Amino acid sequence: MTPVTGGRGRRAGKPDTREDLLTAARELFGEQGYDRTTLRQVGERAGTDPAMVNHYFGGKRGLFLAAMDFPIDPADVLGPLRDVPQSEFGEALLRAILAIWDGPSGPAVVARFRHALGGDQASLARDFLGELVLPMLRERLEGDDVELRLALFASQMAGILVTRLVIALPVMVELDADRLAATVGPTLQRYLTGDLTS
Amino acid sequence: MTPVTGGRGRRAGKPDTREDLLTAARELFGEQGYDRTTLRQVGERAGTDPAMVNHYFGGKRGLFLAAMDFPIDPADVLGPLRDVPQSEFGEALLRAILAIWDGPSGPAVVARFRHALGGDQASLARDFLGELVLPMLRERLEGDDVELRLALFASQMAGILVTRLVIALPVMVELDADRLAATVGPTLQRYLTGDLTS
Repeated sequence: MTPVTGGRGRRAGKPDTREDLLTAARELFGEQGYDRTTLRQVGERAGTDPAMVNHYFGGKRGLFLAAMDFPIDPADVLGPLRDVPQSEFGEALLRAILAIWDGPSGPAVVARFRHALGGDQASLARDFLGELVLPMLRERLEGDDVELRLALFASQMAGILVTRLVIALPVMVELDADRLAATVGPTLQRYLTGDLTS
Repeated sequence: MTPVTGGRGRRAGKPDTREDLLTAARELFGEQGYDRTTLRQVGERAGTDPAMVNHYFGGKRGLFLAAMDFPIDPADVLGPLRDVPQSEFGEALLRAILAIWDGPSGPAVVARFRHALGGDQASLARDFLGELVLPMLRERLEGDDVELRLALFASQMAGILVTRLVIALPVMVELDADRLAATVGPTLQRYLTGDLTS
């Protein structure tokens, strides 16, 4: 459902075009998932030119991040890690993600996560993880078990987010990033590149 | 705030006594935590005899589980594991907990978890974990790092709950319990009894 804002149709540059696109995107991503949603459909539902998505959000990916009201682009977190050797990738990733969670954007990330989990937006969280975040890691891995490895990695990271930032279990809150990286890093490294059966 | 149900005071056996106790308990546990809440306070706020807590819920622990509307008592899950050797405890625990999550009580557990995370009940979830579940595991462990070990264990389990049952990441959903136990079991075992720094 689009908000009642008067006439539909192309309204390039009108101040509510951006909001109409976001509303349409939230609905469509929620209804049919990220993958199956086209910019054409978003434009149609918003009553505007799909090209406006590029204008306002730089494309479907940016539209999705904006629709989720997500404070940072995961690419900005992972980009700097491109030269980290694969054998150190687990701990490096953990440190990079912890720096976000423990930094100024942390509360907004937690708010998004809580909203997605508590409300009816679990499918958006699934798409965010499965379509945006994990594919960037996939490029760095090899072998038959890549999807399983990524899911296990995600499970440990999600658990840190829950216990440290949402439930705020005192031990997890008080743990400094170095200690956390030293204890959980080996787990993540095993999930990403190690022997999964021992 | 207690619901408006007419006069206060002792009303042992009245059908709303149980509900009044639950309402009072939810408020007090939420306001001041499990540990600092006494049965006397709960009785006072509910306008009934604290002894009614034992009558209806078998004590503070049962009151808390009922106040959280939690479908199972964690003691019933952990009890059967008392003879499992410490070296197999990680995987055995995972299997026992997975059997609950994947079983008939699973949806109710997930609903409780989502509600606690999405709403303002994160403190109840923290108490549930920190005061009820983890202390039962604590008895089985030794050494200086027990609190850290329990928190790390909790983080991995919370992450499985999130990715498999809440966000429902396809790979995690499709993973059978045996494969999950084989891949995550060693992580849990390391957290509980292994070398935490390698």
